[in-house]
Amino acid sequence: MERHIDFSNLREHFAETDYFSDEEFEKFTSYLTIKYLKKKEYFTKQGELCRYLGFVNSGCLRAFHTDSRGDEFTMYFAFLNWWIGDKTSFYSGTPARFSIQVLEDCEVFQADKKRWEEALDNIPIFEKWYRVKTRKSYEATQQKIIDTQTESAEEKYVNLLTNSPEIVQRIPQHYIASYLGIKPQSLSRIRKNIFKPK
Amino acid sequence: MERHIDFSNLREHFAETDYFSDEEFEKFTSYLTIKYLKKKEYFTKQGELCRYLGFVNSGCLRAFHTDSRGDEFTMYFAFLNWWIGDKTSFYSGTPARFSIQVLEDCEVFQADKKRWEEALDNIPIFEKWYRVKTRKSYEATQQKIIDTQTESAEEKYVNLLTNSPEIVQRIPQHYIASYLGIKPQSLSRIRKNIFKPK
Repeated sequence: MERHIDFSNLREHFAETDYFSDEEFEKFTSYLTIKYLKKKEYFTKQGELCRYLGFVNSGCLRAFHTDSRGDEFTMYFAFLNWWIGDKTSFYSGTPARFSIQVLEDCEVFQADKKRWEEALDNIPIFEKWYRVKTRKSYEATQQKIIDTQTESAEEKYVNLLTNSPEIVQRIPQHYIASYLGIKPQSLSRIRKNIFKPK
Repeated sequence: MERHIDFSNLREHFAETDYFSDEEFEKFTSYLTIKYLKKKEYFTKQGELCRYLGFVNSGCLRAFHTDSRGDEFTMYFAFLNWWIGDKTSFYSGTPARFSIQVLEDCEVFQADKKRWEEALDNIPIFEKWYRVKTRKSYEATQQKIIDTQTESAEEKYVNLLTNSPEIVQRIPQHYIASYLGIKPQSLSRIRKNIFKPK
């Protein structure tokens, strides 16, 4: 029995930037499959091939790199409307440079490389959307490098509160510390400072 | 009198990834103008609109962000075959987030937004090349975030020696330190350690 899939989030997501006709949108969704992931499961595992790119329809995941000393560094958190996957691995067939693990049970719409490229070839509006999307991801990542190098730990946390309240509300403290590149104790100190009664 | 422009570097640069016919390549170069820049001149200035994207045909430049305290952080060095510009500013019309300044006299092939977009619209092979290029820039920037957070200062410098010998040979030490996010004194110490006679 086929289950009805609700693509309304994805539909709205595209509408933010480009006009997909109903027909184009339906054509695009025909390239997708749905994947349900439980807490602690992996969408991508560092060192293995990243076979899918995915759109987060619900839940939350964490992308992180583990270095040769076994230390983890959190790269991003993905919520509703995020696209996930290690594109380098996906496109080049090289081992993924980071893992993407579930923090809250997820529903992900995904496509493997063959279907992703077919969609790009066959749906010009998707191709156009994807070009702009990739550019914006690049710009955001460049901005993160600037921020990483120029902001103090406290500024980083204040900006997170302002720009990404979702992270502060939903993500455990030790992962936030790992995302900001600081020790959990430093984050506790910063939070005490910010939230202390005046 | 029109001066003959030698586009052979750019021709080779495209050939690394995609097949441009002579006709397509010539069409593309018709959208470009040439800009000569002297040492210390700016291609892009932080806070101002970035009006051009450019291809470095000779010379060398440094992209850097200056924070509210006046501290500089070096984002990248651009040599032959690099594309330069702040794409966010170029596309969105917002003030550039960083400056790009000449370290060695430069020859740059450039296009403003109108001509760049006309080229994308009119030359499908260029559009395809640009999509892949943007993705690779994104991936490289993501890798730099991983490296920044997980490598020690010494590892960073050793990787630079291995992967970007051009930087070590051509760029002044204090800019390399700023690029690695360490103090010039730390870089001197690291260099002494690495190059000390056994």
